[in-house]
Amino acid sequence: MNCLSISTNQLTDSCAEYGSKPPNSKPPRNKRPPTDTQSRSRIDKVNTEVVTLTYGTIVASLCRDLTLPSSSTKTDYAAVNAELDRMGYNIGVRLIEDFLAKSNTGHCSNFRETAEVISKVGFKVFMNVTPIVTGWSQDGKSFGLVFEENPLADFVELPDDGRAQEELWYSNILSGVVRGALEMVCLVARSAATWYQGLTCHDTGANAG
Amino acid sequence: MNCLSISTNQLTDSCAEYGSKPPNSKPPRNKRPPTDTQSRSRIDKVNTEVVTLTYGTIVASLCRDLTLPSSSTKTDYAAVNAELDRMGYNIGVRLIEDFLAKSNTGHCSNFRETAEVISKVGFKVFMNVTPIVTGWSQDGKSFGLVFEENPLADFVELPDDGRAQEELWYSNILSGVVRGALEMVCLVARSAATWYQGLTCHDTGANAG
Repeated sequence: MNCLSISTNQLTDSCAEYGSKPPNSKPPRNKRPPTDTQSRSRIDKVNTEVVTLTYGTIVASLCRDLTLPSSSTKTDYAAVNAELDRMGYNIGVRLIEDFLAKSNTGHCSNFRETAEVISKVGFKVFMNVTPIVTGWSQDGKSFGLVFEENPLADFVELPDDGRAQEELWYSNILSGVVRGALEMVCLVARSAATWYQGLTCHDTGANAG
Repeated sequence: MNCLSISTNQLTDSCAEYGSKPPNSKPPRNKRPPTDTQSRSRIDKVNTEVVTLTYGTIVASLCRDLTLPSSSTKTDYAAVNAELDRMGYNIGVRLIEDFLAKSNTGHCSNFRETAEVISKVGFKVFMNVTPIVTGWSQDGKSFGLVFEENPLADFVELPDDGRAQEELWYSNILSGVVRGALEMVCLVARSAATWYQGLTCHDTGANAG
């Protein structure tokens, strides 16, 4: 079981419409045309193993390439986590267009509704899972998502170096995806979690954005 | 339209069974248990955008990180192509287990049958596309796969540096996947292609393995 904690302290309606870019966002490196699902001759679904293994290869490459300054062999897991989050952010800022086109979702009236839409529409549409929304903070600005199934981490075994299980947030790309997608609808959020198949998170140090 | 050329000059029955590892293969970094699809509580399908965007992020990161020795900003596309192939190889040597479990495919009696299985079973099962087998060489040791749809390259725009369209083999991870998967069933193959959405390949310099 995996969990992800998401929080916000900034929810604005200053953007004219969903999908508009915040001023400081970088343009996508692979530009996509305006969402027009009708004209796309695309395949809707692919096999999960493709995602699981492709993602595993990304993480393995990062663990190999991002090493601590003091050592060429010891992985800098903090750097790996940050890179996964960065990659996820870049995905999220583009995936939101497809999400809005597929879901016909309008503005959420509050953060609780946002949480439900992320879980029951967003993750369901794209990952075919529905994480459980739980762990609301008293001020209602933070919640957790618990994944009973996580396609990214299916049968993953972390490096046996005594550090990875504590330090590597294996599925941290999802944190970035949620962050990027929310930012595009003018909801500044931060998310942090310890991700690992079979373990509940033991660090959900989410900070309000 | 994309195309991929695959060739071989070595087809052996020396391996006792499908899935056995060639002597020089590295162990997978993320070990997977023996294939047992019955016991897996996994999601079968995910949305294609997840793959398209995740893959685009990989390629973008490689293009940023792998630069020519003479310049910190000019991408070394040959290195990117090689890294994508290496990643694909690592995926292929593991994906073959799932393929054999899902497809109940036995030994192919000849390379033409192998080509049909790759196209109509392998790509169909995992990517939900069926590339066209074409361009057989006279000696029957090389063929091409033409992709009328390629989920990896959906709406990709390459960097506008005057080099990417010629030098970057965007979907080259698929070459590695096929190579890795075939190697695990004792079929040494080499594949090379120029991949790009909307362009046919103009370099299919495949060499016999």
